[in-house]
Amino acid sequence: MDKYKIASGFAPFSPCADRFNVAGYRDPLSLDEQFSAAARIQGLEGVGLDYPYQFAKPSEVQPLLGKTGLRFVTLEIGLYPDRKWRNGTYTAPDPGIRREAIEMSKRALEVAAELGAEDVLLWPGQDGFDYPFQSDYGRFWKLLVEGIGEVAAHRPDVRIAIEYKRQEPRAHCYVRNAGVLLSLLHELGLDNVGGCIDLGHSLAAGENPGEAVVLLSRAGKLFQVHINDNYRDWDHDLIVGSVTFWETLEFFYWLRRCGWQGWYILDIFPYRIDGGQALQEGVDRTRFLIDLAERVDTEAFRGSLERADVIAAGRELWQKAFK
Amino acid sequence: MDKYKIASGFAPFSPCADRFNVAGYRDPLSLDEQFSAAARIQGLEGVGLDYPYQFAKPSEVQPLLGKTGLRFVTLEIGLYPDRKWRNGTYTAPDPGIRREAIEMSKRALEVAAELGAEDVLLWPGQDGFDYPFQSDYGRFWKLLVEGIGEVAAHRPDVRIAIEYKRQEPRAHCYVRNAGVLLSLLHELGLDNVGGCIDLGHSLAAGENPGEAVVLLSRAGKLFQVHINDNYRDWDHDLIVGSVTFWETLEFFYWLRRCGWQGWYILDIFPYRIDGGQALQEGVDRTRFLIDLAERVDTEAFRGSLERADVIAAGRELWQKAFK
Amino acid sequence: MDKYKIASGFAPFSPCADRFNVAGYRDPLSLDEQFSAAARIQGLEGVGLDYPYQFAKPSEVQPLLGKTGLRFVTLEIGLYPDRKWRNGTYTAPDPGIRREAIEMSKRALEVAAELGAEDVLLWPGQDGFDYPFQSDYGRFWKLLVEGIGEVAAHRPDVRIAIEYKRQEPRAHCYVRNAGVLLSLLHELGLDNVGGCIDLGHSLAAGENPGEAVVLLSRAGKLFQVHINDNYRDWDHDLIVGSVTFWETLEFFYWLRRCGWQGWYILDIFPYRIDGGQALQEGVDRTRFLIDLAERVDTEAFRGSLERADVIAAGRELWQKAFK
Amino acid sequence: MDKYKIASGFAPFSPCADRFNVAGYRDPLSLDEQFSAAARIQGLEGVGLDYPYQFAKPSEVQPLLGKTGLRFVTLEIGLYPDRKWRNGTYTAPDPGIRREAIEMSKRALEVAAELGAEDVLLWPGQDGFDYPFQSDYGRFWKLLVEGIGEVAAHRPDVRIAIEYKRQEPRAHCYVRNAGVLLSLLHELGLDNVGGCIDLGHSLAAGENPGEAVVLLSRAGKLFQVHINDNYRDWDHDLIVGSVTFWETLEFFYWLRRCGWQGWYILDIFPYRIDGGQALQEGVDRTRFLIDLAERVDTEAFRGSLERADVIAAGRELWQKAFK
Repeated sequence: MDKYKIASGFAPFSPCADRFNVAGYRDPLSLDEQFSAAARIQGLEGVGLDYPYQFAKPSEVQPLLGKTGLRFVTLEIGLYPDRKWRNGTYTAPDPGIRREAIEMSKRALEVAAELGAEDVLLWPGQDGFDYPFQSDYGRFWKLLVEGIGEVAAHRPDVRIAIEYKRQEPRAHCYVRNAGVLLSLLHELGLDNVGGCIDLGHSLAAGENPGEAVVLLSRAGKLFQVHINDNYRDWDHDLIVGSVTFWETLEFFYWLRRCGWQGWYILDIFPYRIDGGQALQEGVDRTRFLIDLAERVDTEAFRGSLERADVIAAGRELWQKAFK
Repeated sequence: MDKYKIASGFAPFSPCADRFNVAGYRDPLSLDEQFSAAARIQGLEGVGLDYPYQFAKPSEVQPLLGKTGLRFVTLEIGLYPDRKWRNGTYTAPDPGIRREAIEMSKRALEVAAELGAEDVLLWPGQDGFDYPFQSDYGRFWKLLVEGIGEVAAHRPDVRIAIEYKRQEPRAHCYVRNAGVLLSLLHELGLDNVGGCIDLGHSLAAGENPGEAVVLLSRAGKLFQVHINDNYRDWDHDLIVGSVTFWETLEFFYWLRRCGWQGWYILDIFPYRIDGGQALQEGVDRTRFLIDLAERVDTEAFRGSLERADVIAAGRELWQKAFK
Repeated sequence: MDKYKIASGFAPFSPCADRFNVAGYRDPLSLDEQFSAAARIQGLEGVGLDYPYQFAKPSEVQPLLGKTGLRFVTLEIGLYPDRKWRNGTYTAPDPGIRREAIEMSKRALEVAAELGAEDVLLWPGQDGFDYPFQSDYGRFWKLLVEGIGEVAAHRPDVRIAIEYKRQEPRAHCYVRNAGVLLSLLHELGLDNVGGCIDLGHSLAAGENPGEAVVLLSRAGKLFQVHINDNYRDWDHDLIVGSVTFWETLEFFYWLRRCGWQGWYILDIFPYRIDGGQALQEGVDRTRFLIDLAERVDTEAFRGSLERADVIAAGRELWQKAFK
Repeated sequence: MDKYKIASGFAPFSPCADRFNVAGYRDPLSLDEQFSAAARIQGLEGVGLDYPYQFAKPSEVQPLLGKTGLRFVTLEIGLYPDRKWRNGTYTAPDPGIRREAIEMSKRALEVAAELGAEDVLLWPGQDGFDYPFQSDYGRFWKLLVEGIGEVAAHRPDVRIAIEYKRQEPRAHCYVRNAGVLLSLLHELGLDNVGGCIDLGHSLAAGENPGEAVVLLSRAGKLFQVHINDNYRDWDHDLIVGSVTFWETLEFFYWLRRCGWQGWYILDIFPYRIDGGQALQEGVDRTRFLIDLAERVDTEAFRGSLERADVIAAGRELWQKAFK
């Protein structure tokens, strides 16, 4: 079995705009060009795309998958990149908008199934609030549970991974951390709905990402994994391992311990540096981290963790990692 | 019915030491003196005390309650103020320490029942980790669930409120935020176990405290409420309302909307200012905030929240609050 | 003399895009339409515009100023909204880019003088770094000092206000907080160069904004003031006073105490709410805050601050502010 | 010349109390016992002690230095561990307290000179505020400058290193970050007064510690260096390198580039783990980091930093560091 199942979205081949430079830091590419760029990355085996904002029909994607040999790993429901979601999707105060979000999501499940995706990514990033006293929390949480429930019931055979994030684009998002997500999953109680841990979102939520892996895994709910990095302050989507070395390794370590067989999806935004080089560096580091997590996973090391003996664990780590 | 049920612990009448000044910023008082000091606070009607570190037998407390007329609102299990808990209580790697923590907790439930407390506060502040790679998360979470479960089963008639906190005294605590707590409560599935929201802990966890109130309330799990303030960075235990005015008011507002009938327990650490004056100020502001939350709770205001109309809500708030 | 000198940029009348919705949350307006929208805000008396990205020649702006009666308060040098600044402006590794930034800045000073602006805003937001080991700090700080020095020397009669910000668009900006800015101003030693305090940037830098006002004022270096709000975590550019009430009032209080005679420039990004209503609310609150700061500024209150008597100060504040 | 000049205070051999466990996590040792414990650490060559709280007369320390061969590296002025400093030292509202702080500081300079210390550490941790509207910033900053100025003028031959810290024990400290410190040093304008960078304080202040090294060094003001680690959220005083690997290495790298010849002073608080083992681990990692910083400092690497080429720099780092 391939232990290096590494995928990515196409942000590294996109303009990577921000609010101060809305034209972005590089020219846009066509979907075809993006596929070709991705195919040049050594060790990258799969892609994830947003429906319907990156593509509208399977037939747009299938030939490109065939040409490049890339796997269609996950489909992200387009719940964020449109003005109409400004006040939320499943929790929009306007019932027409809510209906639109739900119907689009159902279609997304169909498309994902047709493309043979492993799962669907559901990130309700527009569902939240910016100000105190801007939300009737009880009402909107109920709508969120109902909306996801209706979508998930549409295709019980399609796995849905809900991604949590503290903020951005809203100043506060409802599904803000692993604990809130777990509690939501308990409430939903649906076999085909689980969680996605984005390493950087976990850091920015003040969590230990390895602990988050364990919490979702022991509930049988870890469905998808994203990797990247930041300074625990914001979702900067830096190349994995650039800032946070130890907790990143610990994240890979607990994925291994929890028997993770899925993909490692790079989710980086290389605004100012070459997208292809940044992605290649991300792939190379991911392979190294998978290997290093394996190398440190000895019986003695497991014993140190069981005894909470951080001195012993630390010594072993430094010896194993460094020249 | 009394809508101003306000209580406090005795930190304002304690030395309020810190790691740099372990002798504290004022002289210690006897328990008798602390009760007398508390009785002088206008509008303070109840107390919460730590067992067995502030008192060991009900008979030490009962005469002081009688003398002062203060209510014994909650008993806090002494899971933090002892060197023996350095590596955790229910999650200590040493099984002898775990047993000791569980047995002490059971006795605490007995004592609370004997004193007629509303509930017991269970804050597992020593249960966590300081370093990456210091914890076998799966093992220790399992122990945490089992330990609390055994304690709670000992007296199903005694309500237990679990308090969450991001950190301190550990750099990371397992029960770090409202979401993780809710997920833990789902897993426990025990009627007599619920949650405590400490306003400051919620702010420091990056939450909106009013939303946390709603999340626990809609699960039927809001058992206890603590109030204080900070800069969202650390549990400074400042006087309520000193820094965070709007979200504090919103917290009171959602308590009202969720039908909160319980106590408002002030949990402040006035290191450098007069403890009695600080507590009196806290009580006075709490009464004001309860009243203001009532005053803004109009039909029109509820409508603004349902529509997420923050401009309308904001205008009403400023008109209602300010001279 | 007018004590309510309130101005704004045109972000409230712009699409307010973000990286996930690059088309923005509303349609763009022409400059003419933006001026008209601003003129409808009661109590708004001045504008600040970016050169050369919002306008390229004074003649584009002068008729609109004439038509609306708005004052041209400040000109912001366009050091951020262009792909070419991706690696910095005065600190770009490419000397051609550095030269371009410096020459554009000199022209900006000319234009500002021609338009009768109070000052020029210089925000080096692209000058910083995203990763550890991405910057030769010594080299780039030297270039930053030299670049600003050359620009400022070009027109000693034009005042330049340097704005600090912790991050965004870079993950780390060089001029990150009030202290670093003050130190830079010491090093520059130029009479026509001072600082701009953006209230939200100060909060997000972990400062007390009132203290920042005092630090710059006692050095004679407070040249410009921006107002808005956030959760101390990021530059959300919320309507002033929405989250942070007390420190916002304290900011206005210390501006008063330091003899501030300048403008209050609203710098808000109302992504999802009506721009005009948001700006009107901002203007109304600003007037209220100016008045309230005056009302609390009694001899007794000054005495409380001199004695660090926060209980007395707090009581006076709550009595003065609230109904 | 010895390139591994590594020292420490005696916190690892102290009870390491906190506000919840004021008795601390281990028994206290006598000064003699602490010296002996320090002498057992391989590679530890110097100590720093607090005057007058750890010792009152040189004669208490000199025999222990002689016996152990440890160097007396720095003397910390006891400006924090006493109830009398509750409202500040040089900035205390009470002039008697201010005088006491100043006179004690002068004596500290004498004692440091007598003991042959490299310098004196001045950390005004009690000088700050906990609440908004608790401080007359202008007045207290003036007192701070005057107080330090008087102390420094007493012995121009003794070097004083001022240590900055964002918070703790105060919720806000005046000298909160490297920028504010630099600005203070400019204002003081005294040759014998410089700065101390504590790696963890820099991280918790939201800085890049390597950049802080460069900022102080280019002003000729880097006098002292402390090393430890945290999660950027609080001064946890963890073992160096435990959380923050890359910026820690970058800190050592820029110390090397700036020609640092001084001591590396470990400032860790091993609350729950063996103090000697923790310190030994800290010393071993410090030696490794000094070596690794040397190993990566090639011409090619310098070129990558000059070009801000973070891909090239990153590749070289991972190749040089890891097995």
